[in-house]
Amino acid sequence: MQKPSIPKGTRDFSPTEMVKRNYIFDTIKDVFQLYGYQPIETPAMENLGTLLGKYGEEGDKLLFKILDSGQKAGIRKNVIRTVAENDCSRLDLIKGEKYPLMMMMTPSEMFSLTEKGLRYDLTVPFARYVVQHQNEITFPFKRYQIQPVWRADRPQKGRYREFFQCDVDVVGSNSLLNEVELINIIDNVFSKLNISVTIKLNNRKILAGIADYIGAPDLITDITIAIDKLEKVGLENVNNELKEKGLSAVAIEKLQPVLLLSGSNTGKLARLKEVLFHSETGLKGINEVEQIFSYLAKTDFKSTLELDLTLARGLNYYTGAIFEVKANDVQIGSICGGGRYDNLTGIFGLPDVSGVGISFGADRIYDVMNQLDIYPNEVITGTQVLIICFGEEEQIYSLPVVQKLRSAGISAEVYPDTAKLKKQMTYANSKNIPWVVLVGEDELKSGNLTCKDMGTGEQRKLPLDEIIKLIVKDIKR
Amino acid sequence: MQKPSIPKGTRDFSPTEMVKRNYIFDTIKDVFQLYGYQPIETPAMENLGTLLGKYGEEGDKLLFKILDSGQKAGIRKNVIRTVAENDCSRLDLIKGEKYPLMMMMTPSEMFSLTEKGLRYDLTVPFARYVVQHQNEITFPFKRYQIQPVWRADRPQKGRYREFFQCDVDVVGSNSLLNEVELINIIDNVFSKLNISVTIKLNNRKILAGIADYIGAPDLITDITIAIDKLEKVGLENVNNELKEKGLSAVAIEKLQPVLLLSGSNTGKLARLKEVLFHSETGLKGINEVEQIFSYLAKTDFKSTLELDLTLARGLNYYTGAIFEVKANDVQIGSICGGGRYDNLTGIFGLPDVSGVGISFGADRIYDVMNQLDIYPNEVITGTQVLIICFGEEEQIYSLPVVQKLRSAGISAEVYPDTAKLKKQMTYANSKNIPWVVLVGEDELKSGNLTCKDMGTGEQRKLPLDEIIKLIVKDIKR
Repeated sequence: MQKPSIPKGTRDFSPTEMVKRNYIFDTIKDVFQLYGYQPIETPAMENLGTLLGKYGEEGDKLLFKILDSGQKAGIRKNVIRTVAENDCSRLDLIKGEKYPLMMMMTPSEMFSLTEKGLRYDLTVPFARYVVQHQNEITFPFKRYQIQPVWRADRPQKGRYREFFQCDVDVVGSNSLLNEVELINIIDNVFSKLNISVTIKLNNRKILAGIADYIGAPDLITDITIAIDKLEKVGLENVNNELKEKGLSAVAIEKLQPVLLLSGSNTGKLARLKEVLFHSETGLKGINEVEQIFSYLAKTDFKSTLELDLTLARGLNYYTGAIFEVKANDVQIGSICGGGRYDNLTGIFGLPDVSGVGISFGADRIYDVMNQLDIYPNEVITGTQVLIICFGEEEQIYSLPVVQKLRSAGISAEVYPDTAKLKKQMTYANSKNIPWVVLVGEDELKSGNLTCKDMGTGEQRKLPLDEIIKLIVKDIKR
Repeated sequence: MQKPSIPKGTRDFSPTEMVKRNYIFDTIKDVFQLYGYQPIETPAMENLGTLLGKYGEEGDKLLFKILDSGQKAGIRKNVIRTVAENDCSRLDLIKGEKYPLMMMMTPSEMFSLTEKGLRYDLTVPFARYVVQHQNEITFPFKRYQIQPVWRADRPQKGRYREFFQCDVDVVGSNSLLNEVELINIIDNVFSKLNISVTIKLNNRKILAGIADYIGAPDLITDITIAIDKLEKVGLENVNNELKEKGLSAVAIEKLQPVLLLSGSNTGKLARLKEVLFHSETGLKGINEVEQIFSYLAKTDFKSTLELDLTLARGLNYYTGAIFEVKANDVQIGSICGGGRYDNLTGIFGLPDVSGVGISFGADRIYDVMNQLDIYPNEVITGTQVLIICFGEEEQIYSLPVVQKLRSAGISAEVYPDTAKLKKQMTYANSKNIPWVVLVGEDELKSGNLTCKDMGTGEQRKLPLDEIIKLIVKDIKR
């Protein structure tokens, strides 16, 4: 028999991986809740109409589509109709042969039989949710959502076909306080996770102002894509690319001071204000960034905050602030990102609802934490106590014992089979259990149990109450 | 534009629903962990080979199958090959017409193009996991798994196409201590959730013994199906059904004392021992049940425990203990169930691994809790404090204020827009926020903030530190 396997690009998570991942999810969730965000969940499958056309042509191709077997009947009917319509004279050849049914359908017709797809992200389902439930929602609506998404991408290192997104958004409010709050959330989450980060901030309106300023408002996308590559390919290559895209020599010349902006955030903003003096949109963007900075100055803030004009992610989508977060100590892509969008729900018929949100990349954060090995000790431990018995009588004796441990909030288990001490100790070690309680003949007589600290190897005979005190103290340490 | 919707049989969960559901999941999870069970997760999609043939013919039909668009290419190739092989003379008619591709495939061939399916339960993926990762696992392996499953069932009240299962199993141990532990887990979970339950216990070996005893070992399934209906249809109808199934008058006669068993568990067991005196298997089953009862007597136990010979769920699957749990105060199907299986992993090539497990029906438990309305107060509350500001200056003032509240572990938010008091109060009410802090001109001057208890309506001016103490005390209450 072949060893069973799972589809490529998907993963099993072992207990060790799960507790680490849950630690990350729980930390993020706790911070979301501390800020008054509420959880929602949407179904894994959405109607294809909800998903198609929302992620560009490429995105449509990456959707997983769902058939249910009930649809077989539909296909059969469709096939028969098709054959009849085309009056196929070869039907006799086909009947009862290798191909008893003749199907004449274009692939797209065939695929039109699928009506459902797996969700591709959490943003579109959220927009659908807001429109569908608009009458039950009190705005501003602060929600978070932590669920898996699926993409039929070519699997490769660090890219999966099933992965988790952790989204937090507020819709129905234009206030910049929301941007400030989200930046505080980023700062809080990563300081709790002990990851040192740089939060990069940009504003779509500033980018629009720059395109205005150099006289190429239509080329805003090309310009930002080119700027985005500055760090990787250098100034000369960026200028060449801009030329290829059709930017005039004058425009490229005008762009140089913007490309070469460096130094403090305040310095950059001051220079930008001079350059974008004539662009109303540009100045509005600068003003927004300044206001966010000044609000943040009122809060206790640990991360590095950097105005980064090369930040252009999801440009067609964002209308104001754009965020991106990088880990300072690990080379990896962005671990969190987002921005303000002014018309998310418009695609579903509810215009003029402004929102702002960010998404934490749980899988990359997991990689960062693993690489830095910065999980707190209690994350690694599950069971606190294993009770090792030497026979059936001892097992019966241990039943109320283990229950008392659990009542005290201590995660405890009895090794269920009668096995040699060595095997039971190996079990404790492999599960990283820090305490072992041994119950043998002596213990049955005296009522004092042998308690072993697996870390130090120290072993003592104590009454159960004392053992409970000892372990509770150890857990709280 | 049409109002967006979701596929039939699926659900959105609103914040109010989510916090209640999370309360149930978290309670179950906490108990699992207290007993030393560790979490795993498996992918939503499994290879079809893993799923097919595991749930009977009916189950196969209820699988959701997945296509990814990358498979279009494969279909096209297949089609061309097919046309060529059949040397279709009508190709010219079809080419460039309404049906530019001619596909000759049986529906099952077409469906064979799907290689993946959504998981149908957590048991088969778990068996696959154990076999695939057998070298990384230390046995006995105690795992829990809480994830959604999908079935293409006809949706109806209380039956969904996407729903959650909460499974807890231990594999690689024959000890009855595991059965005892699982019954304790059931008792713990439902007493924490404040649901009064009856735990029904049966044993496959006793059922086999009964079939032996009446001389119809082959009819064990028919017999248990008939017995299972006793409560619903009455004795006479059960006897008629048994006759139809081919049971002799003598056999039916012999079965009567078993069907009429009633009274205490000990009474039932004593009678059974007499009846099954000659069946080795039957006596073994009785012995197992007795041992489980005697072990449980050593533990502190709240639920009603009942030996129920009509309990036959998943009979073909279970080999020893069978469990089922019913809520005492709500008319609804079973809310938890399970049993011992001796060859779960055999289907994937790893024989002789015995396991025992139970599954909590989260959706039904949710229905029971809603009907009884027994959620603790803190479950209903998310945000603890809303800060209401009367202008921008007040908003800026409130930034460090809200941060201090959060640092004290209080979930707090600032209403982000400048809106009328009434609108902000409505927001607090709709989110069930128990405390409101008002910041206006007076508060800015004095530094004392107006703190309103939304429950009592009481309103006081206090310094922030006092407010924090008050609310922390309230949360802990």
